[in-house]
Amino acid sequence: MELGHSAVLQKTIRWPLGVRADLLMGELRKDYLTDRLVIISEERARRPTDFKTAGKLRPKAKCPFCPGNESMTPPAELVLFQSGDARLVLEGEEAEHAQSWLVRTFKNMFPVVSTETAVKHRRGPLFREPAYGYHYIMVATPVHEQAFSEIGVEQWVNVLRSLQHMVKWLYRREGVSQVIPFINHGEEAGASLLHPHLQIVTLPLTPPLMEQEVHAMERSFRETGLCPMCSILRMESRGVRRLIATRYFASFCPWAPTHSFEYWIWPKRHEDDFLEAPLEELTDLALIMKSTLTGMSESLKQPPFNLIFHIPSAEATSAKVHWHVEVYPRLAKWAGLERGARVYVNQVSPESAARVLRETSAKELSRLVKNSRLN
Amino acid sequence: MELGHSAVLQKTIRWPLGVRADLLMGELRKDYLTDRLVIISEERARRPTDFKTAGKLRPKAKCPFCPGNESMTPPAELVLFQSGDARLVLEGEEAEHAQSWLVRTFKNMFPVVSTETAVKHRRGPLFREPAYGYHYIMVATPVHEQAFSEIGVEQWVNVLRSLQHMVKWLYRREGVSQVIPFINHGEEAGASLLHPHLQIVTLPLTPPLMEQEVHAMERSFRETGLCPMCSILRMESRGVRRLIATRYFASFCPWAPTHSFEYWIWPKRHEDDFLEAPLEELTDLALIMKSTLTGMSESLKQPPFNLIFHIPSAEATSAKVHWHVEVYPRLAKWAGLERGARVYVNQVSPESAARVLRETSAKELSRLVKNSRLN
Repeated sequence: MELGHSAVLQKTIRWPLGVRADLLMGELRKDYLTDRLVIISEERARRPTDFKTAGKLRPKAKCPFCPGNESMTPPAELVLFQSGDARLVLEGEEAEHAQSWLVRTFKNMFPVVSTETAVKHRRGPLFREPAYGYHYIMVATPVHEQAFSEIGVEQWVNVLRSLQHMVKWLYRREGVSQVIPFINHGEEAGASLLHPHLQIVTLPLTPPLMEQEVHAMERSFRETGLCPMCSILRMESRGVRRLIATRYFASFCPWAPTHSFEYWIWPKRHEDDFLEAPLEELTDLALIMKSTLTGMSESLKQPPFNLIFHIPSAEATSAKVHWHVEVYPRLAKWAGLERGARVYVNQVSPESAARVLRETSAKELSRLVKNSRLN
Repeated sequence: MELGHSAVLQKTIRWPLGVRADLLMGELRKDYLTDRLVIISEERARRPTDFKTAGKLRPKAKCPFCPGNESMTPPAELVLFQSGDARLVLEGEEAEHAQSWLVRTFKNMFPVVSTETAVKHRRGPLFREPAYGYHYIMVATPVHEQAFSEIGVEQWVNVLRSLQHMVKWLYRREGVSQVIPFINHGEEAGASLLHPHLQIVTLPLTPPLMEQEVHAMERSFRETGLCPMCSILRMESRGVRRLIATRYFASFCPWAPTHSFEYWIWPKRHEDDFLEAPLEELTDLALIMKSTLTGMSESLKQPPFNLIFHIPSAEATSAKVHWHVEVYPRLAKWAGLERGARVYVNQVSPESAARVLRETSAKELSRLVKNSRLN
């Protein structure tokens, strides 16, 4: 009955709870019977944190994400920096030498996936494969104490340009089936360091939620010839759950949100492709992100939140699935029903949530478009 | 675009955030494209809590679940009490008069489902149906400050007898497709009151996780004629992920756990039926529950946790799905990857977790079986 994973028992760790054990990492496992995917990554328990288990905030003396402390992280692999009036991207070894960066991207020191995983595919009844992949950190601003909602439109464009670059690059790598960029903001949302940053994780297979989107889209195309997401967007961008819209994007609270005040941002056009979006569209996206993040922060008093990009690979995009952004404020706990049955109790209807978020987001949008510099 | 749910706008609420809105409750909605189920229950925001948003513990002056305070809750519908040497169950109106109860069950004042929901089934592209059902509270002990791990075997038998009674009764009601008993222990796990209690929620449809279990079992029976859960149990009750076993039950850390130190308790026999389990089996279950809950508490220093019973209706049980218990310690936060892609990162492999939990659980089991009274 021994599983023979001794090859990946690498280091010894002492958990906060005083439990000692050898490290196992780099396994992607599937549940016996359901679609639950689990990455076993014991090394990740060693990562630094600004937070203590007691829930008290204890900022680190020296933030590894701040300018000047670059040596505390792995070398940069992509940097966006200012040069005169231009903003330039440098990648590879050259990136590390860029002065006064605006966005800096490097490998996560405590990755949940790795290109050096030792785990082999498992034959037999238990599904296991190497948790093969890339895990990057993208520092979203040089300013440590800036909140995500305080990041200006121009800087969001810098972040989105860097992100587009990284996602495109990652989708060209071997063994990458899905690239998932996301934000954990605030301790409640799973953040361990305060300085605003994104994470980008790649997976060797399509995760359950994205796979279900693809299946549902395919079925609808096959049966009706229509894109269901286009119909949903047409409906939601005018209805009681709409937030604000820009030239290329619409934001709305979804019909069955798993989080109170959850909202989504979708491109309006079916053929839109994040990987090929021109600067004008990225600026438009930055505008609606800044407006709605500020709207959420003002309505809900800077809540912790997760933000996740659903970006399919170029092939998948061109035919079927709209790429999009989902934002989950973290106001309530998921308890037994959510975790044990996947039934979510939401104390705020999306119709109520939209009424609140629409007003504050629209106010911020109108403030932004009055400024020529969009900051 | 108005959804016309004015019939269910009943009361006005002020959220902690200062947002005012009319109440919408009693809707069960399905996501546009995926299997996510959401109950919209705005009235639930009004429920009392021992906890504040700041995360500070503030016990209520008077606990509605304590003996003597019964008038603070709806009338009891099922009570288990001591009479001489015997333990008796009373239900209906008579239950309210039982003195010195050991287990007391009544309707949740802030239910997530209701038999009086005003929502109508929705025609059209957006799935909606009434969140029709029952939501009960079962107080697990008269002793306010007792931890779940401190509840003795005899008292666990009382709880399990009451639970068996309630689940059986609920499965006989109209519009009940699934009965879900669960425990939220500790603020991190979503509990709002400290006094140890279970919740029992019924749903008018089978929730995604249970439905996937059923489908996987049916497929396996069709293709191989074998019960996959029997094979899993045979393997796990001897392997590196085993915890302890009693005459009728085996406990183990599952192959792909979504929580660190997650463990499951399964009946060993395929034909086992919680609804018809005799007292001997319930006592055996109480023994393994008490042993593993104590093991978990000692290993992990009283962690917050969720415990959920997967109990199919009698028809489903007899043929296919094993009923079982799942326990999730809440040591880490679910962040963007978990919530946005349904990919779970686990810093403790079940093999490591089992090594830790096995030792403390076995110690408690051996302590318990040395005592004649099993307390």
